[in-house]
Amino acid sequence: MSATLAALVNGHPASAITIHDRGFLYGDGVFRTLRVSECEPLWWTDQIEKLEADAARLAIPVPTRSAWERDIADALARSPSECVLRLVLTRGEGQRGYRVPARPSPTRVVTVGPLPEALDQVTRHGARLRVCALRLAQQPSLAGVKHLNRIENVLARMEWNDPQTHEGLLLDASDRVISGVSSNLFIVRRGEVITPGLSRCGVAGVARDRLMRCAQDLKIPVRVADIDLADVTSAEEVMLTNSLIKVWRVERLGGRSWSRAVLSDQLRERLDD
Amino acid sequence: MSATLAALVNGHPASAITIHDRGFLYGDGVFRTLRVSECEPLWWTDQIEKLEADAARLAIPVPTRSAWERDIADALARSPSECVLRLVLTRGEGQRGYRVPARPSPTRVVTVGPLPEALDQVTRHGARLRVCALRLAQQPSLAGVKHLNRIENVLARMEWNDPQTHEGLLLDASDRVISGVSSNLFIVRRGEVITPGLSRCGVAGVARDRLMRCAQDLKIPVRVADIDLADVTSAEEVMLTNSLIKVWRVERLGGRSWSRAVLSDQLRERLDD
Repeated sequence: MSATLAALVNGHPASAITIHDRGFLYGDGVFRTLRVSECEPLWWTDQIEKLEADAARLAIPVPTRSAWERDIADALARSPSECVLRLVLTRGEGQRGYRVPARPSPTRVVTVGPLPEALDQVTRHGARLRVCALRLAQQPSLAGVKHLNRIENVLARMEWNDPQTHEGLLLDASDRVISGVSSNLFIVRRGEVITPGLSRCGVAGVARDRLMRCAQDLKIPVRVADIDLADVTSAEEVMLTNSLIKVWRVERLGGRSWSRAVLSDQLRERLDD
Repeated sequence: MSATLAALVNGHPASAITIHDRGFLYGDGVFRTLRVSECEPLWWTDQIEKLEADAARLAIPVPTRSAWERDIADALARSPSECVLRLVLTRGEGQRGYRVPARPSPTRVVTVGPLPEALDQVTRHGARLRVCALRLAQQPSLAGVKHLNRIENVLARMEWNDPQTHEGLLLDASDRVISGVSSNLFIVRRGEVITPGLSRCGVAGVARDRLMRCAQDLKIPVRVADIDLADVTSAEEVMLTNSLIKVWRVERLGGRSWSRAVLSDQLRERLDD
């Protein structure tokens, strides 16, 4: 069923893990999704730093970077030059029960899959958004972290089947707009680029961070702020970012559509450099 | 490392699952922990009904009861008469991405492990509680469900190492007391048994439900209500329930200790019937 091109578990070709892995028992781990372009994982340093920072938030010891790099070289040697790399780090095997092992032996999983087909088409024409009914829970202890507890995203993604809808917009219980289901969000208002704060919920993606830096490089004012749905629908431009799509301009949300995308185009070009 | 006595995946003896199982990818599944006594899973009908109800909340199709029963009979045939049974149901294998498969083929995992050693001792002497710093996030879409997204419980359980502390008390972001890390909570106030509502967060355990029914049978007034920490420390009795411990009376929380446990004893006896 799965179109996996290569898979390693703790450095060895494998496509299974023990049912006692805490990643399976409790979602006790973190992960990253990377775009591979011309055989190179995009934004590698940012990605591994983010994985390590997320692991630290859960107190999961991190493998050496050379261990990851060996795995990735091995996996990519058997993969096409354009593909998707997924890195998973769990707390490793454990007994039943929430208590963590005194000396955890973390599990690292590296898989390679195909690049989704429609990416470039949406990049050209813009993404169609919808607002999800599910509201994100506020958990400052986990906010920003890309951990393996993702049922909220799964439930939100179950809200639509229409292939013409490319992404769902997630709000929190206080009706603040937080992100897309699989992406971060930016709006442009009076020439300023704004992205929601992620101290209560949401995932702080690497592409979000890079887009903010690109804006600074281009002297475009950029800031983090709470926004609501009216801020999005009244925005001059709306953008989505993640490591696979890089930047999508939003073309439609409910009754509102956008055609101009001056800053989105500028930022995309810069991000592609 | 793991003291598993028996394990089946989809009916076959196995201790591994594919890394593409959505239980591992996203914690996209539900589980139950059952006490086995004299070779019989305790409270079986309640347990399987709860598993099915939780799966329905996540729109995961459920296997037939006879499939579970076959697995369990198989696993228990090779296990001691007193043990712990764990049932896991995930949405099964999936491609990368949150979108659920159109026709999911769920994974069921049955494992048997040893009964924890200290249970009876704590039952006799009472449990020592501490208050966790972590606050549970409020997510009505998942509240009550025993799903595989359990990092909150893991983080809460990391707050203490002292083996003399038996359980941690979890509050939500609004300082309402919700439950223990691995148990539900009851307090006695003016002869009335009260347990926190679980419509915003927490797991509604089978033992909680049974204890409420026992109280009704014994004509002890019982109700669900919001309570805070002062309600707990000022209570006449405090109890913890789950399927392994059944009922523990709480003996100490911070500076407060309890010696009397009239209703706790009555309810435990009834529950043991």
